[in-house]
Amino acid sequence: MNICIMGFGSVGQGVARVFQMKKEQIKEDHGLDLNLIAAVDRSGAAVNLEGLDLNLLLETKKSTGKLSEYPENGAEGISGVEILEEVDYDCLIEVTPTNIEDGEPARSHILKAMQDGKHVVTSNKGPLALNFRELADSAQKNNVQFKYEASVGGAMPIINFAHETLSGCRIESIYGILNGTTNYILSRMAKEGSSYEQTLNEAKELGIAETDPTQDVEGEDAACKVVILANSILKIDATYQDVEVRGISQITPESISLAKKEGYLIKLIGEVSEDALEVSPRLVKEGSPFAVDGTLNVATLKTDLADDVTVVGKGAGSLETASAIMSDIISIWKTN
Amino acid sequence: MNICIMGFGSVGQGVARVFQMKKEQIKEDHGLDLNLIAAVDRSGAAVNLEGLDLNLLLETKKSTGKLSEYPENGAEGISGVEILEEVDYDCLIEVTPTNIEDGEPARSHILKAMQDGKHVVTSNKGPLALNFRELADSAQKNNVQFKYEASVGGAMPIINFAHETLSGCRIESIYGILNGTTNYILSRMAKEGSSYEQTLNEAKELGIAETDPTQDVEGEDAACKVVILANSILKIDATYQDVEVRGISQITPESISLAKKEGYLIKLIGEVSEDALEVSPRLVKEGSPFAVDGTLNVATLKTDLADDVTVVGKGAGSLETASAIMSDIISIWKTN
Repeated sequence: MNICIMGFGSVGQGVARVFQMKKEQIKEDHGLDLNLIAAVDRSGAAVNLEGLDLNLLLETKKSTGKLSEYPENGAEGISGVEILEEVDYDCLIEVTPTNIEDGEPARSHILKAMQDGKHVVTSNKGPLALNFRELADSAQKNNVQFKYEASVGGAMPIINFAHETLSGCRIESIYGILNGTTNYILSRMAKEGSSYEQTLNEAKELGIAETDPTQDVEGEDAACKVVILANSILKIDATYQDVEVRGISQITPESISLAKKEGYLIKLIGEVSEDALEVSPRLVKEGSPFAVDGTLNVATLKTDLADDVTVVGKGAGSLETASAIMSDIISIWKTN
Repeated sequence: MNICIMGFGSVGQGVARVFQMKKEQIKEDHGLDLNLIAAVDRSGAAVNLEGLDLNLLLETKKSTGKLSEYPENGAEGISGVEILEEVDYDCLIEVTPTNIEDGEPARSHILKAMQDGKHVVTSNKGPLALNFRELADSAQKNNVQFKYEASVGGAMPIINFAHETLSGCRIESIYGILNGTTNYILSRMAKEGSSYEQTLNEAKELGIAETDPTQDVEGEDAACKVVILANSILKIDATYQDVEVRGISQITPESISLAKKEGYLIKLIGEVSEDALEVSPRLVKEGSPFAVDGTLNVATLKTDLADDVTVVGKGAGSLETASAIMSDIISIWKTN
């Protein structure tokens, strides 16, 4: 399977590292021969139709910051769409940064690949939250597979889990802690009694919150995931504007300690149901599956037969997210 | 797909009810036409090669307790193996009660079906805990599928989850609360400060513990599940005798309250790793995914790429267990 990676930040590099670590194992276990032939970043691209040297690729990115510096086969200034035009690949891995204004350039990359009859795997929430229907329709029309497990919850598997493992059940609703940064902040506030501002600064120092934490703390990141789950699992035709969103910046230590006295914790919960698409702070019971600390993500699927089934996992991380992408690639390989 | 159900207790009746509820939906979603042609209990069998009437079947069992009373097509005293000999089916659902002395009669039913080239789905822990290798080898030799999601954790999906959803990862070890009854008892003791005996009696009154609770409270049930996970997910060639087992009957309210003071809970944990196959009471941290109350089951899979991934679900229940069996049947259908 010839693969093209679009975007070579933390997730893209994670995918290359996983290819390095697991190439032989995956060939042995699944008969799948992974061949990375192109990788694109802002500087341009590294291309080799025989297969890129993964060590050299990662080393070049690390030392120069630019894929265009890849020895012999680096191309400066070439665009993602140009690469998709010129290279003969089987599957696009689209992992450019999420943009929730217009979903670009990921949206164009994905549509171009599908129109050319290529499978697509992505971790990019932007085009999924804004243009889910357009992308799903294009995949169907062009008879290609479109997988996006890594876009929700990183290494907390939920989409394939609902479709494959719970195939005997109907999913009625989903409730989840879909953002690790806010879970970290709320968990620390509950444990230390500290203020929101103080805890946010601590999270920034630890690299858990970004310098501009708006997407996380105001619930925008979780809202994107609500949209993706609504479309893909509950078949609700929704977009980002349909989600009611309230973040955690107004939560006080006093409200957390009041809740605690009654055996509750405050968590930022995303709800996906026929009745509501919503992200807001809510009370959850101690001793329930939602009462997890740290940067973990959690999602509970309410089903018709199996009652509540919950998954918990790391919401972010380079290798963790890459592992979800790898499961998607293997699934495409198995069902083709 | 013509189906034969062996055993018609809580799980077998659950399967029949799920067929009733979901037959049309499953035909529509997956193109799978489920046709139950034989059901067997201690009294004999109900057989109709055109398909049993599910309402009549469940009604007959409910009012008489005997499938042999099924109007027109009831056969008194016929054995399971005789039915498998006489009826032309595609898939056996083996849900007779678990026997951890010799795994019978389930072991014979399963081997007979496989030798005849039929697929098998089971929830029966006995033959899996005692004869895993023999059954897996027979399935391979006869080129049939053998699925047993429901044998571990009822509606907490773990086996298909590891094989399908986490296919990109290697599973290094599994830690889990694999028995709902003991989790209920330990949760109540922690909350109420009550003694083991008192709480066990309460659980019996509520129908959560059986009249003879040995298999649950002494860890035998969890040990069977440890064996199944060891063989199926970690490829460790183990049997029931290889598991070190300690139950919860020696746990005192004092030890629970001591642990609580330090932020810990006591849970009965099954460990599956290259180093240990073990069931024993252990300390788990409050705020961790293991700190769940009630009859819930939990399992954490330690992976090479995705770090820890956890699933939580109901460990028992008629429809819940049947839903896992249904997912297995759909998976067989899709991959054949």
